Amino acid sequence: MSEGRVADRAAGPAARRGRPGYDLAGLLAVAVEVFNERGYDGTTMEDLAQRLGIGKSAIYHHVAGKEELLRLALDRALDSLFAVADRVRALDAPAIDRLEALVRGSIAVLQAELPYVTLLLRVRGNTGTERSALARRRAFDRYVAELVRQAEADGDVRPDVDPLVTARLLFGLVNSLAEWYRPGRHGGTGADSSLADAVCAVAFDGLRLPAAARE
Amino acid sequence: MSEGRVADRAAGPAARRGRPGYDLAGLLAVAVEVFNERGYDGTTMEDLAQRLGIGKSAIYHHVAGKEELLRLALDRALDSLFAVADRVRALDAPAIDRLEALVRGSIAVLQAELPYVTLLLRVRGNTGTERSALARRRAFDRYVAELVRQAEADGDVRPDVDPLVTARLLFGLVNSLAEWYRPGRHGGTGADSSLADAVCAVAFDGLRLPAAARE
Repeated sequence: MSEGRVADRAAGPAARRGRPGYDLAGLLAVAVEVFNERGYDGTTMEDLAQRLGIGKSAIYHHVAGKEELLRLALDRALDSLFAVADRVRALDAPAIDRLEALVRGSIAVLQAELPYVTLLLRVRGNTGTERSALARRRAFDRYVAELVRQAEADGDVRPDVDPLVTARLLFGLVNSLAEWYRPGRHGGTGADSSLADAVCAVAFDGLRLPAAARE
Repeated sequence: MSEGRVADRAAGPAARRGRPGYDLAGLLAVAVEVFNERGYDGTTMEDLAQRLGIGKSAIYHHVAGKEELLRLALDRALDSLFAVADRVRALDAPAIDRLEALVRGSIAVLQAELPYVTLLLRVRGNTGTERSALARRRAFDRYVAELVRQAEADGDVRPDVDPLVTARLLFGLVNSLAEWYRPGRHGGTGADSSLADAVCAVAFDGLRLPAAARE
């Protein structure tokens, strides 16, 4: 049992309600950190209470339980990604340019919301909340595939790779950043675009230097 | 408690030793399946016994515990990847061709050993076994980065992206296949190279169709 919980009991309900320290956003940030470390399934409310240094009842003051924390965290990542897709849909530009804008926007979301996106990428569908999140991810992926198909019809994307496979490879590349990108380490803010430049250079033009460029 | 465990107790030690059904490889295959579903930290020996339909003591007949199963599974993936690296090192070919051979060989390992590679990619370093596996992964990544650097020095790889970032993007792309590639779904055996062809086309030459090819 955490010291926080003991203190909580001593303080009584009135003190709990007014407890300073964690608002919902702060609580969510810590919960996501623990979910990413131990896995969502491997995390108990007691684990969360211990890490937060508060009692479980103080968590229940904000949310109905662990799954609501998961839903809030996944929605935060998904809402940001869908906001990018909406901006891209509104662009008056060829499909290949919209595809690049979608990649760049998604990388910006990953950089700004790294723990939330990391959690989203690890969702396996064990709960209703996870299955809803997976359904939203699939809708996003369908939009990517639609852009690739359109860019291929425009003659801007190589026709020798299946559009669905291309879409998966492209966002596989984007999502793989969550495995190693860490905000501080690259000396920039979340708004730094050098990572997006590198991904777009490799994904759109390949890492091979064309023979013509070598002369 | 599983029925298997009850049966186990009734049968006694002599019957346990001769128990048919699971050799170590079979036991490992099921354990890896459960680890991938529930997470390693979230899996207990009791979970494994239930899925196997045998008693925990029958598992202890083969291994000292859960962590030994993890070590055997991770070594299986890592040994296969290092065997590819050794073959590539022995090739008498330019660095860019060796890099492509390493990518193709790694994809073949991922296709043939998907559950083991999936488990490896999810390792976070919570135990000594996981930290050893991460150290071996880093050694593999260093070899990739070394090949990229060499290919860049040869003038075969674009110089505008940092070799370490390029190496990470390239294997981020390869590793992302574990998220969606499923052997049956693509109608081929593990030896099917169309996936490797698609990855190499995108990674080495980019998904953009060069202007010259559009005429």
